[in-house]
Amino acid sequence: MNFLEEEIIKNGTIKPGNVLKVDSFLNHQINPQLVYEMAKEWQIRFKDKNINKILTIEASGIALATMLGYILGVPVLFAKKSKTSNLGNDVYKAEVKSYTHNTINNIYVSKSYLNENDHILIVDDFLANGCALLGLLSLCNDAKAKVEGIGIAIEKGFQEGGKKIRDLGYQVESLAIIDSMDSFNKKIKFR
Amino acid sequence: MNFLEEEIIKNGTIKPGNVLKVDSFLNHQINPQLVYEMAKEWQIRFKDKNINKILTIEASGIALATMLGYILGVPVLFAKKSKTSNLGNDVYKAEVKSYTHNTINNIYVSKSYLNENDHILIVDDFLANGCALLGLLSLCNDAKAKVEGIGIAIEKGFQEGGKKIRDLGYQVESLAIIDSMDSFNKKIKFR
Repeated sequence: MNFLEEEIIKNGTIKPGNVLKVDSFLNHQINPQLVYEMAKEWQIRFKDKNINKILTIEASGIALATMLGYILGVPVLFAKKSKTSNLGNDVYKAEVKSYTHNTINNIYVSKSYLNENDHILIVDDFLANGCALLGLLSLCNDAKAKVEGIGIAIEKGFQEGGKKIRDLGYQVESLAIIDSMDSFNKKIKFR
Repeated sequence: MNFLEEEIIKNGTIKPGNVLKVDSFLNHQINPQLVYEMAKEWQIRFKDKNINKILTIEASGIALATMLGYILGVPVLFAKKSKTSNLGNDVYKAEVKSYTHNTINNIYVSKSYLNENDHILIVDDFLANGCALLGLLSLCNDAKAKVEGIGIAIEKGFQEGGKKIRDLGYQVESLAIIDSMDSFNKKIKFR
């Protein structure tokens, strides 16, 4: 088991319906030392890529992206989930379906910060059905930015997102891939 | 001028209505090296305080809080702007009025991660009328957590928030305090 898998076993909580709660260290309370370790691991896994920007989506992804951007020495861009007044009108927009909340939402990035010269590393906390990630890929596609890779903290390997995105040809590096979890016996099986 | 004031002059944009856009380095695109410098500065300014947790509010505050938590070696907690299903019901709640969007929204933290043993350093990107900050203070008050200080990136010194919060007895350390800004002449006067 790697450091993230150990943390999931120690501090994650399995809820019925294949819900994994990691709000004690990743998406409500955050363990920044763990985030640093994760960012260092992505640095190793994408060491052959020439990356000039990190892209993520608010909110939890921002912690991961900021630390990775710091380590790689490149700026971070986070897609916004609402078109706030100070974002302006010159934006790329993508639709993201949320299965958890049964909604379709738009995400936005300003055209000022994503363009055809960008070599993007996308990071996010979770990969399950892949909808958020497809939205971020769509933004990069619209901007003609090149996606060099995708760093994920926790992938639900029993959902279709990871396969779908890898089948599109992207290098997806998930630090923990869960093959199955059992809320009754409190067991998690990692790939 | 300090490093943040220089960055504001170089890359900030003044819009009519006392709007300062810093989305090229702080709240859409993020410069993580700058964030690191800011966190180091807060570490110096609060060096006499015994801090065991950083509290912020999504989304932009997460970048600042994560870096500061990393440097201080303490966990980070970010208040959520919506009561997502995985937050649970055992939450502290506060109201935050947004003058920008003319709305009243609730913010939430789980009771699991804020309690009477906590010595909190609050950080956020902006302080203007102080509404978001008052919401965070209210969460800490409900949890009986002690607020040791407040670190702000950019304070609009011509709005009442800074005075209001300092009058309550809190140590507020804003890295750039704007006394006036002029969208016609593109001039910013720092305190």
